[in-house]
Amino acid sequence: MATFSRLIRFLAKDGHIYYGDALLPSGVNDIAKVTQARVIQGDIFGPYRVTDQVAEVRMLLAPLARQDIGTVRCLGLNYEQHAKESNLPIPKYPVLFFKPVTSIAGPGDNIPVSLLAQEGEGLDYECELVAVIGKEAKNVPESKALDYVLGYAIGNDVSHRDWQIKRGGGQWGLGKGFDGWAPFGPGIVSSQVITDPNALQITTKLNGQTVQSSSTKDMIFGVAQTIAFLSQGTTLLPGDLIFTGTPQGVGMGRKPALWLKDGDSVEVSLEGVGSCVNRVVYDKPGPKL
Amino acid sequence: MATFSRLIRFLAKDGHIYYGDALLPSGVNDIAKVTQARVIQGDIFGPYRVTDQVAEVRMLLAPLARQDIGTVRCLGLNYEQHAKESNLPIPKYPVLFFKPVTSIAGPGDNIPVSLLAQEGEGLDYECELVAVIGKEAKNVPESKALDYVLGYAIGNDVSHRDWQIKRGGGQWGLGKGFDGWAPFGPGIVSSQVITDPNALQITTKLNGQTVQSSSTKDMIFGVAQTIAFLSQGTTLLPGDLIFTGTPQGVGMGRKPALWLKDGDSVEVSLEGVGSCVNRVVYDKPGPKL
Repeated sequence: MATFSRLIRFLAKDGHIYYGDALLPSGVNDIAKVTQARVIQGDIFGPYRVTDQVAEVRMLLAPLARQDIGTVRCLGLNYEQHAKESNLPIPKYPVLFFKPVTSIAGPGDNIPVSLLAQEGEGLDYECELVAVIGKEAKNVPESKALDYVLGYAIGNDVSHRDWQIKRGGGQWGLGKGFDGWAPFGPGIVSSQVITDPNALQITTKLNGQTVQSSSTKDMIFGVAQTIAFLSQGTTLLPGDLIFTGTPQGVGMGRKPALWLKDGDSVEVSLEGVGSCVNRVVYDKPGPKL
Repeated sequence: MATFSRLIRFLAKDGHIYYGDALLPSGVNDIAKVTQARVIQGDIFGPYRVTDQVAEVRMLLAPLARQDIGTVRCLGLNYEQHAKESNLPIPKYPVLFFKPVTSIAGPGDNIPVSLLAQEGEGLDYECELVAVIGKEAKNVPESKALDYVLGYAIGNDVSHRDWQIKRGGGQWGLGKGFDGWAPFGPGIVSSQVITDPNALQITTKLNGQTVQSSSTKDMIFGVAQTIAFLSQGTTLLPGDLIFTGTPQGVGMGRKPALWLKDGDSVEVSLEGVGSCVNRVVYDKPGPKL
């Protein structure tokens, strides 16, 4: 097989970590349910080979290793109904911010909440389609932009509204950039499998209750338009991730506000890809030194 | 010699690219004037060795290779007089934003201005002390924070005020993140050589005229305080860069405003480190396809 359909990275029962192409039983669409994968050899952004070696999956990891991830870009206010619930105008251009690579986590990892992030209030979820850049892209037109995409995943742009908005001097990076605050996965579905990323159901469940439910067709700037715009004067590199914004239903937009608590389970899902389920875990104060 | 004093990365006259320890003639303090360096072998963030091999410098490059650079963090409004000229309050916490790694450039590289960045107005300079993280740092106290610094350089946080402020939806990343908009260098002076980063003269000259002149002692959040704060709940990795904000005198703060033009030469300098001299070069429109 020449190229992967559903890229995963996983700890196998043999104790090794592999990239693999998920083998899903017929009728199963959520990559998170994978139990077996064909092992991939080589460079996922260069020459690679999906081998005949089948490995047993013990645990899914973030679908790209840290050293394979470049810059993590995120869009704000990219769904019309979310801009409305935030009481902010529809943006004329994509609203760009960044997360550090250390915020990236796997589809089943805990979301750690440091002591600093326990100050104030406003811990929130944001389900987002994540586009993974597969080839160097600069000044690309919208009509060709999807050719530069390796594939798509679902991610959670975990946010602390006090640090993001009130304590960050207006810049969002601080309140969204803590370790583990960008879980994504469960795998990356090839752009040859998902040919239209702007027609997918996207949802969040908090402790089993649906709190966000929308479609990526409600994006203000679609995936192709976003990539074309971001590539103007800026080179997007293989392994760059783009979190493309979240639909309405975030905790901040509710009356009363709905904030994540220690122990909560947050599930974000994307049609054709699957789901990440992450538990909120508050750090405990260390011993006084 | 066990460790470097002044790390450079350079194209040598023998055609190879090396990391090296700059050999400066006595009385010369600007690393940009280096002509020879001892070649460094190994991993600059791990075991390395300053060898006895002396190479001739043909051209200085960005002092870290792209694959050795992690996340590029920047502080806004971190000098009191700059916050005042920007008509913004003194921040209570460090104001954090990010640049992509593709914005990093060398000490003599051109600053390319894409067609998108030629829209609107407001191309501006910002001289900044750059701290390079040398060891993984998480939840470090201020008293130990400088132990995690590999060294210091001077950088230019090139900014387009219209894209940064008016067209970016309030988020600064877009108008500061274009390719080549974070030249830094000319080398990295070891934190064993510069033991107090908050007592250094820092300046910008535009076409030879001094337009910024201050001291890093005027920072609101000093380097140690910044690193300690940013490491709370967030792991700083070896190769992460922190641009620590700019003093007063930027083009935006002047009446009338002073914007960079095609062909301008911008020199940013830091005491004990040296200078970067970068020329503004507007992209030409491509052929109609």
